[in-house]
Amino acid sequence: MTGLERFSLNQATIKYADLPTAVRVTAEAGIPAIGLWREPVQGHGLDAAARLVRDAGLRVSSLCRGGFFTAPEGADRRAALEDNRRAIDEAETLGAPTLVLVAGGLPAGSRDLAGAREAVADALAELAPYAAAAGVTLSIEALHPMYVSDRAVVSTLAQALDLAAPFDPALVGVVVDTFHLWWDPDLAAQVARAGAGGRIASYQVCDWVTPIAADPLLSRGIPGDGDIDFAAFTGLVRDAGWAGDVECEVFRQEVWDADPAEVAARAAAAYLRLVAPYL
Amino acid sequence: MTGLERFSLNQATIKYADLPTAVRVTAEAGIPAIGLWREPVQGHGLDAAARLVRDAGLRVSSLCRGGFFTAPEGADRRAALEDNRRAIDEAETLGAPTLVLVAGGLPAGSRDLAGAREAVADALAELAPYAAAAGVTLSIEALHPMYVSDRAVVSTLAQALDLAAPFDPALVGVVVDTFHLWWDPDLAAQVARAGAGGRIASYQVCDWVTPIAADPLLSRGIPGDGDIDFAAFTGLVRDAGWAGDVECEVFRQEVWDADPAEVAARAAAAYLRLVAPYL
Repeated sequence: MTGLERFSLNQATIKYADLPTAVRVTAEAGIPAIGLWREPVQGHGLDAAARLVRDAGLRVSSLCRGGFFTAPEGADRRAALEDNRRAIDEAETLGAPTLVLVAGGLPAGSRDLAGAREAVADALAELAPYAAAAGVTLSIEALHPMYVSDRAVVSTLAQALDLAAPFDPALVGVVVDTFHLWWDPDLAAQVARAGAGGRIASYQVCDWVTPIAADPLLSRGIPGDGDIDFAAFTGLVRDAGWAGDVECEVFRQEVWDADPAEVAARAAAAYLRLVAPYL
Repeated sequence: MTGLERFSLNQATIKYADLPTAVRVTAEAGIPAIGLWREPVQGHGLDAAARLVRDAGLRVSSLCRGGFFTAPEGADRRAALEDNRRAIDEAETLGAPTLVLVAGGLPAGSRDLAGAREAVADALAELAPYAAAAGVTLSIEALHPMYVSDRAVVSTLAQALDLAAPFDPALVGVVVDTFHLWWDPDLAAQVARAGAGGRIASYQVCDWVTPIAADPLLSRGIPGDGDIDFAAFTGLVRDAGWAGDVECEVFRQEVWDADPAEVAARAAAAYLRLVAPYL
């Protein structure tokens, strides 16, 4: 009993470690699960990656990421959807229960936010049967509204749940990510709704650090380094019935520049102190 | 008939111009109204400022800004509320129909977002009678969620409307600002709700420009320079019944560095092309 039974380190938190190193430091920190990214997995080779993780005794909590399917009908959209099918295949091979989907921003030159959002709904309808056959849950991640135009037109948990609603919860769920959602005045109601509908497919923790980094993608912190009340947020997720892994996913230059074993230990300690007691 | 009858230039758009210059370039551009800020007004002298604007034949569309009242009870909170009473006095003297309120972020060292939001509701209740006596509408401005921790714990139009709900609409309304709200999947419903309740006290236009500026406060653009569909957004505000001024308020270094008369002309041209046809 280490207290880390439900903790997972997302490998983006130690981005500069190659896959064998990421797997090793995760296991050596006593962390039983890892969140994988497609690029390092592909770099290592898919089957070899699956074996590496399995041999280390780690669970895969999620695969990041599919999505980026807001383009209008045409070759780009077809290529994006085909790439999502490959991502579903990879999740299946890796034993990842869920593939995280980041919707994508406005298509180049477009200001049609409503249209881009419809394109997301259409993509889900097209991919859902394929994911069902693979036994992989698609999880829609609402990103912070500051990324709406260039990264994800899905901006709130309510919106993600609306997008998931037409599908079986085992097929399409949502990511609940503290960094992206903590500001939402409607958070408590929407987390409860997600739980009641069986829609929570992933719970990710990382902190909101101000001032926002010059590259806003890198403005995240390890829990405790920023403004988020993890006790309150985690309590909502617990009360919503989430019994799965809790992933720590941090994009931050200082974290990436640090020794990965040290980062894994810091993330685990932060989890034990700020998250685990409220699960 | 210039087409600019409902246009107002917020003086923050030409921040480096002193008040007499701001008033002169606004009037010379054929713009009939100006949005004022407290600091330049105080720098010029309140009564002199009121006279200056009146003598130039300009309407005052709003005064920016009050608020910043999330501190817990104590001397800081008392000082903030007293400062808001002075801001209400100034709005009355200037003939500004509304005082824009920016809520303020988390108190120093606090992670209690819910508590800070309650402090905003309490502040409104305390200030409302004073504003009523002055004939000034308090208008709550929801700021983009990226400012939630350091600037405004009011992040959505729905939340602003919930805060306004206990009060007479003539007393407490909301600002509808394109930059802060355009990402909201619930925008159409909330703008309609704001209109139905008579809560729209100000409509402000500026664009969302990516990449987000290194200082995220300065990431705004003149309409047309970014990602926002002003036809669609303005149509919502029109359909909600808004018949008042449309203020252009841009914080952007290149805009501030340009000649203020040129900026006033650019803003007016953008309004005529992208906003006025949809009012």
